[in-house]
Amino acid sequence: MCQLLGMNANIPTDVMFSFAGLARRAEEHKDGFGIAFFEGKGLRLFVDPHSARESALAEWIQRYPIRSEVVIAHIRKATQGRVVLENTHPFQRELWGRYWVAAHNGNLVGYAPNLHGAFRPVGDTDSERAFCWVMQELAKAHCQVPSLTELTLTLRELLPVIARHGTFNFLLSNGQALWAFATTRLHSLERRHPFGMTHLADADVSVDFSAHTNPSDRVALIATEPLTTGEAWQALPSGELSLWVGGERVA
Amino acid sequence: MCQLLGMNANIPTDVMFSFAGLARRAEEHKDGFGIAFFEGKGLRLFVDPHSARESALAEWIQRYPIRSEVVIAHIRKATQGRVVLENTHPFQRELWGRYWVAAHNGNLVGYAPNLHGAFRPVGDTDSERAFCWVMQELAKAHCQVPSLTELTLTLRELLPVIARHGTFNFLLSNGQALWAFATTRLHSLERRHPFGMTHLADADVSVDFSAHTNPSDRVALIATEPLTTGEAWQALPSGELSLWVGGERVA
Repeated sequence: MCQLLGMNANIPTDVMFSFAGLARRAEEHKDGFGIAFFEGKGLRLFVDPHSARESALAEWIQRYPIRSEVVIAHIRKATQGRVVLENTHPFQRELWGRYWVAAHNGNLVGYAPNLHGAFRPVGDTDSERAFCWVMQELAKAHCQVPSLTELTLTLRELLPVIARHGTFNFLLSNGQALWAFATTRLHSLERRHPFGMTHLADADVSVDFSAHTNPSDRVALIATEPLTTGEAWQALPSGELSLWVGGERVA
Repeated sequence: MCQLLGMNANIPTDVMFSFAGLARRAEEHKDGFGIAFFEGKGLRLFVDPHSARESALAEWIQRYPIRSEVVIAHIRKATQGRVVLENTHPFQRELWGRYWVAAHNGNLVGYAPNLHGAFRPVGDTDSERAFCWVMQELAKAHCQVPSLTELTLTLRELLPVIARHGTFNFLLSNGQALWAFATTRLHSLERRHPFGMTHLADADVSVDFSAHTNPSDRVALIATEPLTTGEAWQALPSGELSLWVGGERVA
């Protein structure tokens, strides 16, 4: 199994604090990490097949503020697929002139979708197969770029089909929105005015967000387990798809 | 215009020395940089819309030895397209279960290829349009993954079609091989035993490769202008496609 982190905000926001909390959990989830930052339509994707606790890249990411509207991060504990770079989440593809990124926590047993379209896995994980199938089916369902509402309706049909094969906690983004589908373990939190002092659950680290924010800022976080103490994390209902845009949950 | 750097080796090799030389040239080429490292089928792609001379990411890359069989790097001086992340080379797509990466030096005037397939540009550069067209036409020419010889024959037909529109110095890789197409300025060098002392052309920096290599190592470098002094860089002939595999030029 693995752990996931997603962030969506209404202004470019760094995730150094949250990623530091996630990276502390990499002792058990040591088989690589990755983090994708959307900046408008542009994308930075960092992947490393080493533990986020020991990786020089992870250390750099925790010190360097990359401001982004959407982030998807993942620390891996391999269930299927070798510990190599091409099996490290998040995965990236292009569709309709937008980059798409996805990461998965869970295990899909005997999952071998019919991949007859333009999206083929590079590695050998169940997770990348699932992502390629989602991209293929989105491309088949819409001949050109649909609205976020239409995309969400299509995803609401597709993702439960994958979830029949096992545990499927899944984060997906094209930079415009962040989708989360939970089968077992995903929690979400919305931070907004008034901002205050926040403490990591996994380390003796605190930050006073009131010093770094404006009253209009809105930030949504999605994580396998709550990353902080004293904040109102909510479990996402099993089998449901949620959507965040501009730091707000809209579906 | 921009500057390009390519590397292909028969064992995983770092490019810290060569990338340091390229980054020195970023005073003029200040509109972003990127560097792609293949590790087997896996890919790390770092892009930054800031100058490689000032970027904290570029500084980190020059200090941290990422060992790779194929590298493509680019420093940008924008001719078409805004200075934003999505216009920063190299560009990445997936085809036949392999990542493909490309970077371009030059300027294609009035270049608007018919992009009717599965590859659409995310940004607004001539370079990404050219890359998407190459990917589309490769996918049309071969129903499944062809041999490197077949791929090279197809690329030899496709790339001159793009070059009719202007300056087109182009590096392309899928991790198995490195292709270079020159219209005006690309130089190549093959380093092999006996290795010796080498000096950067752009900085008072030297390295003794004999201390870091084995006699069987072979490394090929491709660059817009020779990166070192005292080595036998050769200009690539205009209008020709070259191919390196395992650090050796094979076509």
